Amino acid sequence: MDSGRLEAFSDGVFAVAITLLALDLAVPRPGNGALTHLLAGRWPSYVAYAVSFAAIGVIWVNHHSVFRNVTEIDRPTLYLNLLLLFFVVAIPFATATVAAYLRDSRYSGDTTAAVLYQCVFEGMSLAFGLLFWRVVKYGRLTVPLSEADRKRAFIRFSIGNLGYIAAIGVAFVSAPASLIIAGLVAVYYTFEQTPVAAAAPAAPDPDDDQ
Amino acid sequence: MDSGRLEAFSDGVFAVAITLLALDLAVPRPGNGALTHLLAGRWPSYVAYAVSFAAIGVIWVNHHSVFRNVTEIDRPTLYLNLLLLFFVVAIPFATATVAAYLRDSRYSGDTTAAVLYQCVFEGMSLAFGLLFWRVVKYGRLTVPLSEADRKRAFIRFSIGNLGYIAAIGVAFVSAPASLIIAGLVAVYYTFEQTPVAAAAPAAPDPDDDQ
Amino acid sequence: MDSGRLEAFSDGVFAVAITLLALDLAVPRPGNGALTHLLAGRWPSYVAYAVSFAAIGVIWVNHHSVFRNVTEIDRPTLYLNLLLLFFVVAIPFATATVAAYLRDSRYSGDTTAAVLYQCVFEGMSLAFGLLFWRVVKYGRLTVPLSEADRKRAFIRFSIGNLGYIAAIGVAFVSAPASLIIAGLVAVYYTFEQTPVAAAAPAAPDPDDDQ
Amino acid sequence: MDSGRLEAFSDGVFAVAITLLALDLAVPRPGNGALTHLLAGRWPSYVAYAVSFAAIGVIWVNHHSVFRNVTEIDRPTLYLNLLLLFFVVAIPFATATVAAYLRDSRYSGDTTAAVLYQCVFEGMSLAFGLLFWRVVKYGRLTVPLSEADRKRAFIRFSIGNLGYIAAIGVAFVSAPASLIIAGLVAVYYTFEQTPVAAAAPAAPDPDDDQ
Repeated sequence: MDSGRLEAFSDGVFAVAITLLALDLAVPRPGNGALTHLLAGRWPSYVAYAVSFAAIGVIWVNHHSVFRNVTEIDRPTLYLNLLLLFFVVAIPFATATVAAYLRDSRYSGDTTAAVLYQCVFEGMSLAFGLLFWRVVKYGRLTVPLSEADRKRAFIRFSIGNLGYIAAIGVAFVSAPASLIIAGLVAVYYTFEQTPVAAAAPAAPDPDDDQ
Repeated sequence: MDSGRLEAFSDGVFAVAITLLALDLAVPRPGNGALTHLLAGRWPSYVAYAVSFAAIGVIWVNHHSVFRNVTEIDRPTLYLNLLLLFFVVAIPFATATVAAYLRDSRYSGDTTAAVLYQCVFEGMSLAFGLLFWRVVKYGRLTVPLSEADRKRAFIRFSIGNLGYIAAIGVAFVSAPASLIIAGLVAVYYTFEQTPVAAAAPAAPDPDDDQ
Repeated sequence: MDSGRLEAFSDGVFAVAITLLALDLAVPRPGNGALTHLLAGRWPSYVAYAVSFAAIGVIWVNHHSVFRNVTEIDRPTLYLNLLLLFFVVAIPFATATVAAYLRDSRYSGDTTAAVLYQCVFEGMSLAFGLLFWRVVKYGRLTVPLSEADRKRAFIRFSIGNLGYIAAIGVAFVSAPASLIIAGLVAVYYTFEQTPVAAAAPAAPDPDDDQ
Repeated sequence: MDSGRLEAFSDGVFAVAITLLALDLAVPRPGNGALTHLLAGRWPSYVAYAVSFAAIGVIWVNHHSVFRNVTEIDRPTLYLNLLLLFFVVAIPFATATVAAYLRDSRYSGDTTAAVLYQCVFEGMSLAFGLLFWRVVKYGRLTVPLSEADRKRAFIRFSIGNLGYIAAIGVAFVSAPASLIIAGLVAVYYTFEQTPVAAAAPAAPDPDDDQ
């Protein structure tokens, strides 16, 4: 099965999810106070919007990086991709929740909200790790990897996971700090961490043991 | 007419519908109780989200399976595909309704909501069956099927229908149980039930053991 | 400029607009009466949903029919396509409005709502007529049409317009009757009314005078 | 990296953002006054909808113009494209806010709302300028530009920026006037302002000094 339609469908889901993030920016109707104050009071929404936008954007870039080196996929890959999207689609909900509870310091839910937020990202990260492993192991790659390279690729790709686990722990202490960690993980993935892709431009290696 | 744009449009609709499912996860604004309680009390939303996400995901996988073996379609196929999408698009509404009524045990609408939910799936299933039949019978397939194979394919593909009919009946007794049945039907369709697709890779290479 | 990306973008807009239609199906939260009653009382929403879904679906089919016979388009075509989408995107709003005012007979806005609804469709129809004319006249077609064929094609394609004009008039008398007319126009366009497409399968005619 | 998936993802985001604009057209439920009055009182929403629709539409046309002349892109281009989308996705929010505050003259937020609106567009414009520069400088173009042509192209493309800066200033004096300026900038970009594209149809120039 070629990966074209998997990419098209995933792009659609990424596009809708990233656009829905902005729905939470909406300010209350006129008559609820000065607009300047209303906007200023919503800074957690902007931070959460920026972090989640960056995260989904980077997930998309890496998804693109992985699949452009794959010429053929199987049915389990489609399901692992759906598992990834299952968590991606929950990101706007988690983002809106953490923003709402950070905004209103009268209520104590910010810890719970931040834990929820980081758990959604951890779930996404685990699903992406599984998907990556499946693709590298069973997909037909344009540039096949050796067993050792595959392991190295998997570790390098999955290590961001530890960032989200750390962020879950930090969330119990400080919700804003955990958001910063999530932002830093996005920065890590900004750089090329998908060695399938990195290997691609290199000439096909004769002693590659695929 | 080639099926490329039918697939692109359908992918768009599937992507939006699957993402809109998550809108129902939203929790009440701060000030309505402890967030942990709010989240815990919304378990029917998570179950309904998971079942409907799996269902739409599996519909997408099968849609993909069917159409990648079709090189040419006609106008009635476009309309049958629209009929399928007509029901797919109603899934987020049915999901939100069943979740809302399962959540709040003070009200008795859960039976009605579950029947509605299963009827939307039954409609989807009938439309998909018709679409499948049309494609297998009139579409230009990459690997044409014999009359007998076509019948077998149709029966195997349509049998999930019975699951939804059973679920409608069960919904009158227990709404949660009917959700479980819908989940089981999704599991059935997780496996290859579209023999057009199954037949396709068979032909070419005799010693292909990949 | 090839028409691929115009089609991809339009498909995205059609897909989102057709899915947003279903948002209006949402019933009130539990505690506002028996669900069976709530659902039954919302029949105008179902009728409006069905008519608008059919209309957008048929617009998509015809859009597809027109553009699959076009190999090259110019910048004004992109803008006329945007004008078409401008009205398509307003359909969910017009649909929700007409449904809300038909639902509640205590208020008299149903005439206004139905006129608004039909005006959106008339605008869509005019924009599609202009787009069709531009494509047939200046686009590079796979099967070029003679001047006479072009005129005939334009008239045949644009005649649905009269249906919407009639529907605007009827809306002043009866809102439900005007919805029926809109539905009938959708039925008219269900059949092939885009002779560019119809001409395509025929072998290139030697005495074609383009 | 070829630009196909960047375009597909961007098209998805543009399509969702342009469709979400129409959500703000929704009128209050029946029982809040005569529908004709309700509709008439919402003219700022229609103006804002039209201006923002035109703006996103024109951004899409230019995005298309730029990328159809690019055969190969790099990772930073993906991120600059995400930065552009970051602002595009905020347009429905900014549009709804300016419409809400223009609608209700009892409240004074219209200046703030208009400044916010223009700042989102200025951000979009800066991001698009950066993206354009990156593509022209480092992308593999179908028709490479000379250093002088590149500079000229960049200036011609970026000059709309000044329009948005002017609009920010004007917003402090008159919110409606600043909307008109934003509309005029959209008109400017309606015409071909992406000389990469303009150069493309010309035959490859032998003394092109790329």
